[in-house]
Amino acid sequence: MSFFGRELRVATFGESHGKAIGVVIDGVPAGLPLTEEDIRRELDRRMFCNIPVLNPRCEPEEFEVLSGIKEGRTQGTPIAIVLWNKRVISSYYDELWMRPRPGHADLAYYLKYGANYDHRGGGRASGRTTAALVAAGAVAKRLLSIIGAEVVGHIVELGGVQISREYTIDDIKSSWSKPIPVVDEDAMRAMLDKIVEAVKEGDSIGGAAEVWIVGVPPGLGEPAFDKIKADLAKAAMSIPSAVAFEIGAGIRLSRMKGSEANDPIVLKNGKVGLATNKVGGTLGGITVGEPVWFRTYFKPTPSVRKPQQTVDLARREPYMLQFKGRYDVTTVPKALVALEAMAAIVIADHALRAGLIRRDRPLQ
Amino acid sequence: MSFFGRELRVATFGESHGKAIGVVIDGVPAGLPLTEEDIRRELDRRMFCNIPVLNPRCEPEEFEVLSGIKEGRTQGTPIAIVLWNKRVISSYYDELWMRPRPGHADLAYYLKYGANYDHRGGGRASGRTTAALVAAGAVAKRLLSIIGAEVVGHIVELGGVQISREYTIDDIKSSWSKPIPVVDEDAMRAMLDKIVEAVKEGDSIGGAAEVWIVGVPPGLGEPAFDKIKADLAKAAMSIPSAVAFEIGAGIRLSRMKGSEANDPIVLKNGKVGLATNKVGGTLGGITVGEPVWFRTYFKPTPSVRKPQQTVDLARREPYMLQFKGRYDVTTVPKALVALEAMAAIVIADHALRAGLIRRDRPLQ
Amino acid sequence: MSFFGRELRVATFGESHGKAIGVVIDGVPAGLPLTEEDIRRELDRRMFCNIPVLNPRCEPEEFEVLSGIKEGRTQGTPIAIVLWNKRVISSYYDELWMRPRPGHADLAYYLKYGANYDHRGGGRASGRTTAALVAAGAVAKRLLSIIGAEVVGHIVELGGVQISREYTIDDIKSSWSKPIPVVDEDAMRAMLDKIVEAVKEGDSIGGAAEVWIVGVPPGLGEPAFDKIKADLAKAAMSIPSAVAFEIGAGIRLSRMKGSEANDPIVLKNGKVGLATNKVGGTLGGITVGEPVWFRTYFKPTPSVRKPQQTVDLARREPYMLQFKGRYDVTTVPKALVALEAMAAIVIADHALRAGLIRRDRPLQ
Amino acid sequence: MSFFGRELRVATFGESHGKAIGVVIDGVPAGLPLTEEDIRRELDRRMFCNIPVLNPRCEPEEFEVLSGIKEGRTQGTPIAIVLWNKRVISSYYDELWMRPRPGHADLAYYLKYGANYDHRGGGRASGRTTAALVAAGAVAKRLLSIIGAEVVGHIVELGGVQISREYTIDDIKSSWSKPIPVVDEDAMRAMLDKIVEAVKEGDSIGGAAEVWIVGVPPGLGEPAFDKIKADLAKAAMSIPSAVAFEIGAGIRLSRMKGSEANDPIVLKNGKVGLATNKVGGTLGGITVGEPVWFRTYFKPTPSVRKPQQTVDLARREPYMLQFKGRYDVTTVPKALVALEAMAAIVIADHALRAGLIRRDRPLQ
Repeated sequence: MSFFGRELRVATFGESHGKAIGVVIDGVPAGLPLTEEDIRRELDRRMFCNIPVLNPRCEPEEFEVLSGIKEGRTQGTPIAIVLWNKRVISSYYDELWMRPRPGHADLAYYLKYGANYDHRGGGRASGRTTAALVAAGAVAKRLLSIIGAEVVGHIVELGGVQISREYTIDDIKSSWSKPIPVVDEDAMRAMLDKIVEAVKEGDSIGGAAEVWIVGVPPGLGEPAFDKIKADLAKAAMSIPSAVAFEIGAGIRLSRMKGSEANDPIVLKNGKVGLATNKVGGTLGGITVGEPVWFRTYFKPTPSVRKPQQTVDLARREPYMLQFKGRYDVTTVPKALVALEAMAAIVIADHALRAGLIRRDRPLQ
Repeated sequence: MSFFGRELRVATFGESHGKAIGVVIDGVPAGLPLTEEDIRRELDRRMFCNIPVLNPRCEPEEFEVLSGIKEGRTQGTPIAIVLWNKRVISSYYDELWMRPRPGHADLAYYLKYGANYDHRGGGRASGRTTAALVAAGAVAKRLLSIIGAEVVGHIVELGGVQISREYTIDDIKSSWSKPIPVVDEDAMRAMLDKIVEAVKEGDSIGGAAEVWIVGVPPGLGEPAFDKIKADLAKAAMSIPSAVAFEIGAGIRLSRMKGSEANDPIVLKNGKVGLATNKVGGTLGGITVGEPVWFRTYFKPTPSVRKPQQTVDLARREPYMLQFKGRYDVTTVPKALVALEAMAAIVIADHALRAGLIRRDRPLQ
Repeated sequence: MSFFGRELRVATFGESHGKAIGVVIDGVPAGLPLTEEDIRRELDRRMFCNIPVLNPRCEPEEFEVLSGIKEGRTQGTPIAIVLWNKRVISSYYDELWMRPRPGHADLAYYLKYGANYDHRGGGRASGRTTAALVAAGAVAKRLLSIIGAEVVGHIVELGGVQISREYTIDDIKSSWSKPIPVVDEDAMRAMLDKIVEAVKEGDSIGGAAEVWIVGVPPGLGEPAFDKIKADLAKAAMSIPSAVAFEIGAGIRLSRMKGSEANDPIVLKNGKVGLATNKVGGTLGGITVGEPVWFRTYFKPTPSVRKPQQTVDLARREPYMLQFKGRYDVTTVPKALVALEAMAAIVIADHALRAGLIRRDRPLQ
Repeated sequence: MSFFGRELRVATFGESHGKAIGVVIDGVPAGLPLTEEDIRRELDRRMFCNIPVLNPRCEPEEFEVLSGIKEGRTQGTPIAIVLWNKRVISSYYDELWMRPRPGHADLAYYLKYGANYDHRGGGRASGRTTAALVAAGAVAKRLLSIIGAEVVGHIVELGGVQISREYTIDDIKSSWSKPIPVVDEDAMRAMLDKIVEAVKEGDSIGGAAEVWIVGVPPGLGEPAFDKIKADLAKAAMSIPSAVAFEIGAGIRLSRMKGSEANDPIVLKNGKVGLATNKVGGTLGGITVGEPVWFRTYFKPTPSVRKPQQTVDLARREPYMLQFKGRYDVTTVPKALVALEAMAAIVIADHALRAGLIRRDRPLQ
C-alpha cells in the first residue's frame, strides 16, 4: 500500500489531478534542525527547470508543512507535508477514459479499481507522486546528517548512452549543477541529443541512475530478510518505471569468477575495510563501513505521441491511441532524485532500528 | 530480521553448524492439503544429487513438521518445520576464526556481532539457510495451487554462458529433470564445462535464474510501496549472493524507446491482455492477468581455494587465506529453488492480502 | 507511532494548535460509496453541540478530503483528510511552558522531546487529535456496512454514576439523540448533574463507554497475538485518558465460577450460537457470529482549575499551577465516538485480513 | 497471527497435543549473557510444582535451544526454542470432538478451521502455549537487565478474594517463594481455600495478576498508537482467558475527580517525578521514569466437571457435556508468569525501538 518503513515511516497519498499529493513522515526524533527550505531544495532539484525540454512548464511546488516542525526543529511527532496540485488541463485525458495507455499503469488500475480509477494524469500512478517521496527524502537526508551519512546520485545511462569515466563523490555532487547530473561531459551531451531526438520523434527514452550513500557506519542491516540490499531493492523498485536493480557492480559481479569478484579485505589507516568495493558496501546484507552504492534502471516513459495499440474497455474493441497531452520524454532525472530519497529513508530507518539514532530523548 | 511477509508470514532461524535450521509459516488457511512429501519434494530439488560436482556429499534433508498439519491438511495455525543439521566437520573453519573470507558475510558479522559470531560454515549467513526458505516455499506453492497459480524457474546464465533459445513454461518444467535446469541444451553443456573448469581452478562462478509465476489473476499488488515488482525484488535480494534483480525484460527495457518497450494491449479470446509481456506481468506494480516473470543474478560463491587477501582481526594484521573446506562451486542451482520459494511466498501473501484466498473459514 | 492497522491502515498527524490535524486511510477497496457527508456526520456527533457545558464554543470541523474519493466512491487509493485547526487563543498556555500539568502528557513530552514540544493545547497529545480518528472511523464504518456490520456505542458510567437497566442495540442508537448518549434516563440526569457540579468546582470527571459491533461474521481474529480482544484493547487504550479495558463482562467474569461464566452453546434457528454473551462475542480471540462488545474506562480530564503541584522544569523548582484555559470537564462523550471509530477500524481491518472483503477488484 | 513485536519479535507455534510447541525470538543484540538455565528458571516458575492441587502431574519442561546462542551469549540471530510435548492421554478428548466446550475457544476454532481443528487439549488455544511465551520472556527479561529494568508480578485477586495490604517490590519478589505469589498472607490462605473448594465442586475460578516493571527510563513509548499502555494491553489481552486490563489504578482512576486522580509532579532528589503513581508510570502513553504497573483479569478456566450445555456440531443437536480430563482449576498463576513475559517483551521492544539498546554492534 502507500505505507513504507519500520521505525522511520512514511505514508504517501494523492492523485495527479486531485487536490493535492502529500506525505506523512513519522519516527523522526525531536530536535532535528529542519526548515521548509530543506524540503524546497530537494523539490527544486527534482524539477530540472534549467533544461526546458525536460520540463517545459517549470513551476516550483507549492507545499505546506502541516505538523511536526516547531521553530526550525522537529517535534518528534509526524511531519505532514501537502503539495498542492496546480490547475492542470485534464481535457487531454478525456480520450483516454477506458482506453489504457500501453506500458502505463492504466490497464492494471482499470482491472483493479474499475470506473473508480481517476485516470487523469495517471492518477495515483503518476510520476508526479514521486514529489512526495522527495519531500520525505529531504527529511531523511537531514536525519542521516546526524550520523555523518550523505546520499548523492547521478545518471549513468540515458537512451542507451553510458558514462565511461571514473568519478569521485565530489564529481557526482558537481554534476548537480549541470543540465542533467552526469559526471561524464561527453556522455551528457550525447544524452541530451538523445532527449532532443526522442522529443522530435514523439518517443521517449529510459536509462539508469546510481546512488551512493557515504559515511554509513558498519553494522546496519539484518540477516535473512532485512538486508540493506533487499530493502534498497524494494525501495528502488517502488519508484514508477523502475525495471531493474543492481547492488554494487551487480550483473558484472555475476559474470566474474569468485577470485575476481571478492573485494580483498585490508587495513586502511588501522581500520579494516575493503580494498575495492565492487560488492556495494554490504556483505551478508550488512554494512561494513564502506559506501553503499546501487543502480536502478528505468524504462522509457510509456506515454508517447506515436500511435499505439490498445483496447477500448467500454466497447471491448481495439483502439489506436495517440497521446496528445504533455509527457516527460524521460523520467530518469526525476526518478534519480526520488531514488536518493528512498535510499535516505531506508538507511535512516536502519540507523533508527539499530539504535544508532536514539528516540527516547531529543537530539542534542 | 528473520521475519518476512504480511499476511503469509515466515520466520526463519538457525546457523549452519548449529543444531538445526528451520522456519515457522503462519497465515495459511485451514484445510489446505499438505504432506511432508510436498515439502520433501522441494527440498530434494534443492540438493542436485544427480550432479556430483555440485553436491559431492548428497544427503536428503532430515526434517520434522512440529505443528500446524493434521491428517494431511493444514490446521490454520503456524506450521513449524525443523531441518536438523548433519554431523559436519567444523575443523576446516578453525583457521577462519577472526579471519573473514573476502566476499563472504564474515566481515560484516564480525563487525556487528563480534566474537559471538558462529563462523562455522558461515553461520546464519550460510547458503544452507535457504533450505528453510525452500520448505516454506513448498507450503506457499501448495497454497497458490488453490487459485490456479504455479511457480517455475530455470537457470538462464552461468559462468557467463547465457541461454539463447525461445522457451515455453513446459520447457522450463522439462528442464527440471536435467542435471541443471537449463532449457537450452547447448548452453547447459557449456555451463557444465564452466563448472568443471571452476572446480579445477579452485574458483567459483555466478549466474542468473529466472522465475515465472503463471496463472496469477489480475489485481494483485498495491500502488506506491507494495508493488509486486518491489516485493519480489526484496524477496529475491534477500537470498545470499543475490546482486541484481530485473522484472520482465528489465535492463533491456531501459534501453528501448517507449514505442518499442510498451506491450500493446489487445483482446485475446475476448479477454484484455498484453500482446507481448516484456514488462513482466505487472503494470504500476499490479498484476494484469499475464504471467509474472523476473530474473535474479548471483555473484560467484565467495569461498574459493585460491589464496585471498584478508585481515587477521585479532592480530590486526594482513593474512593470506586459503579456504580448505567444502564449498559450492556455484550457488545458482540452489538459489534458483530458493528464488521460486520466495516468489511463491510473495504472491501467496498478496493473494491473501487481496482477499482472493479467505481465512475466516476452512478451504473447501 | 502514529500508524495503525495491518490491511486497513491509518496514519494520523497534527498538533492541537498547529496548522491542522489529519489522517491518511489506506487499504479501502475501490467502489465504496463515501461522501464528505459521511465523514461530517461522525465529526458532528463528536462535537456535542447540544450540551453547551460540554462544548461551549461549538463549531463544526472544517475539513478537506485531499485524495482517494472520486464522484462519491472510493478510488482504492489512500484517503487523506485534513481538519484545519481554528484560530485559537494560545496565550493561556504561556504560563504552562516548562510547567507540566499533573496528569497530562506534558511531563512525558518534555522528557522525550525537550523544548521541541509544542505544548499549546497539549500539542500532539491533545484530545483534539481524536477528531482524526473519528474521520477515519467514518470510512471504516462505511466499509463494515459492506458485510452488514455496524458499530454503536453509549456511555455506561460518568462521574461514578452507572446505568442500571437492560438495553438493546436500538436503545443505544436512540440514546444518540439525547444530550449525552445514555440509555438510562435517570442515570443520564444524574450524570449531567455531575458534569454541572464538576464545572462549578473547577474539577473534572471520568467514566466509561461501551461499544457494540453487531453483524460480525464468525471466523475473524487469529490465535495467539492477533486476537480480536487484543487488537480492540490496543485500539481502545490508544485513546487519550483510557485507563482500562474490558471485553464482554470483563472483571465480573473473573469473579464468577467457570460454571457461571461460560456461555452455554445452543442452536438458535438452526444456527450455533451462545445462549448468553457474557464473553463479549469472541472465544479464543476469534468471533463466533455473536455481537462483539467491550468497555473502556477514561480517567477525568487532567486539566482542572484547582491549583495543582508541579515543577518548573526550567528553574527546577516546585510550582503551583492553576489552569485558566478552556478544558473539557469530561472527555468521555468525545472519547466514545473515537472508541467506536477505533473499533470499526479494527474489525474492518480483520475483515480485510480474513479476505471477507476483497481488494483485487472494485466492490460491486 | 502468531507473530508479535516490532524490533524484538517473537513467533510462536504449536498445539497442545502435537509434537511440540515453541518460539522464535528475533532482534536480540549479540553478546547478551543467556543460558538454558535462564530459560529453565522461568519455565519452572510457571509450573507451580509446590502446590499439587494446581499441578498434579508436575514435570519440568523438556526444551531445546536450536539456534542463536553460542557459549552462553546471544549471537544476534534468531533464538529458536522448542518445548517438546509429553506423552499425553488424548482419549479424554474423544467425547469432545465436534462438541465445543462452553467458554473455550473450541466453538470459534470449529467455525474458523472446521474439521482441521486439533481439538485435543485445546490445540493451539491451550493454556500450554503460554510456556512458549514464558521462554521468550526469559530472553526479554535478560535483555531488560542491560538497562537496569526488572519485571515482577503477583496475584492480586483469586476466586473473588482480593489482597488488602500495601506492598513493595521486595514484597512481590518474596511472594514468589510462597505456594502462590500473593503478598498478603491472609488473602493467600483464603485464595487457597477457594482453590480447594473449586476442585471439590468440579468448578473453576478466575482472578487478577499485577505486573510491575521497575527501572524503566523515561521516553519509551510513542504518541497516538504505540503507547506503552496500548501495547501492554494488546500483550496482556493476548493471553488465554484475559478479560480485562487496567493501567495503574485503572477503573478506580475513572471514578475520581481530576484533582484527585492527577499525580502531583515533584522533585525527588533533584529528579522530576510523580509524588504518587496512580497513573501507572506513563503519561500520554510514554514512560516518565516511574515504575510501569498494570493489572490483568482472567476468567475462570472454561473446562469444569459440572455438566454444561453445548451443541453436537456434527449432528446439529443439543448435547450435555461433562469434561472428564485434567484441567487447571485456575489459570491465574500460570497466566501471571506469561503476563510478566509479555510485559518484558513489550518494554524490551520499546527499548530497542527507542535506540536505548543498540543492535549495530555487540553488547559490551
